[in-house]
Amino acid sequence: MNIRIRDAGAGDGAALHAIVRELAVHHGHADDFVSSPMDFELFLAGPNPVGGALIATCGDAPAGCAIWHRSFSTFRGRETLYLEDLAVLPQYRRRGIGSELLKAVARLACGRGLPAVTWLVMDWNEEARRLYAAAGAEIESGNSVCRLSGAALERLGS
Amino acid sequence: MNIRIRDAGAGDGAALHAIVRELAVHHGHADDFVSSPMDFELFLAGPNPVGGALIATCGDAPAGCAIWHRSFSTFRGRETLYLEDLAVLPQYRRRGIGSELLKAVARLACGRGLPAVTWLVMDWNEEARRLYAAAGAEIESGNSVCRLSGAALERLGS
Repeated sequence: MNIRIRDAGAGDGAALHAIVRELAVHHGHADDFVSSPMDFELFLAGPNPVGGALIATCGDAPAGCAIWHRSFSTFRGRETLYLEDLAVLPQYRRRGIGSELLKAVARLACGRGLPAVTWLVMDWNEEARRLYAAAGAEIESGNSVCRLSGAALERLGS
Repeated sequence: MNIRIRDAGAGDGAALHAIVRELAVHHGHADDFVSSPMDFELFLAGPNPVGGALIATCGDAPAGCAIWHRSFSTFRGRETLYLEDLAVLPQYRRRGIGSELLKAVARLACGRGLPAVTWLVMDWNEEARRLYAAAGAEIESGNSVCRLSGAALERLGS
């Protein structure tokens, strides 16, 4: 096992897309996954990027990734880091890659002088919750995610 | 009643701070609210801002606000808008200001060509949930917010 974690960059869009697609399927949201590899290239290399990604490789193969973006906490009054996705492909699980990716995200936040990393976890995802609690995260249940999109967004915003 | 909604800008930091502070107290999180009016000024007017704010006024008095920041959906492959806080001061509630602020956020997202607005609501906040559902939002329960900060973040990220 030769796990490495590095910043994702130009050319990594297809790997990120494949890893996040597997995550979407795993969470039962395959139908909501409409992004393309090129979307991830543009996310990584477009002008004024809102975030970035870390990629874990095992040998030369992509094994997992962490995708983050900038955020702002009004309670802290400071920019913070939001972890949009942390995902490890099934065949690479139970090797500590998720923990290593989370550590790399924490290093990234500390290096940028940010006071916090926040993210969401589904209540049913016991394995992920254990990993996050072991890393020292506070976990606050009782939240719902609201999404306004499509025709509802156009109707309200027109 | 003369409600107006406008973009917040330089000089609105104190009003935003006061409105969000009231929200923090209302949610029982006064101890976690450590930001200052100047933090909001820097958020609005610093270099490469990650977001912005809308402010609702009643006559000349600040009555409510919506604070948003840029975000990215890996499932959509597109930048989206994240609504960090939507708050109306107690003495101005039940006049439709929250709905007007949400509409203004939807217009902002549509104007920027963004396909979605996302935000969080606490499961206990029935009044807010009704407002969001009436506006056409999908509401997905069963989420927990994870936060890594302070000593735990430094330990993991050092």
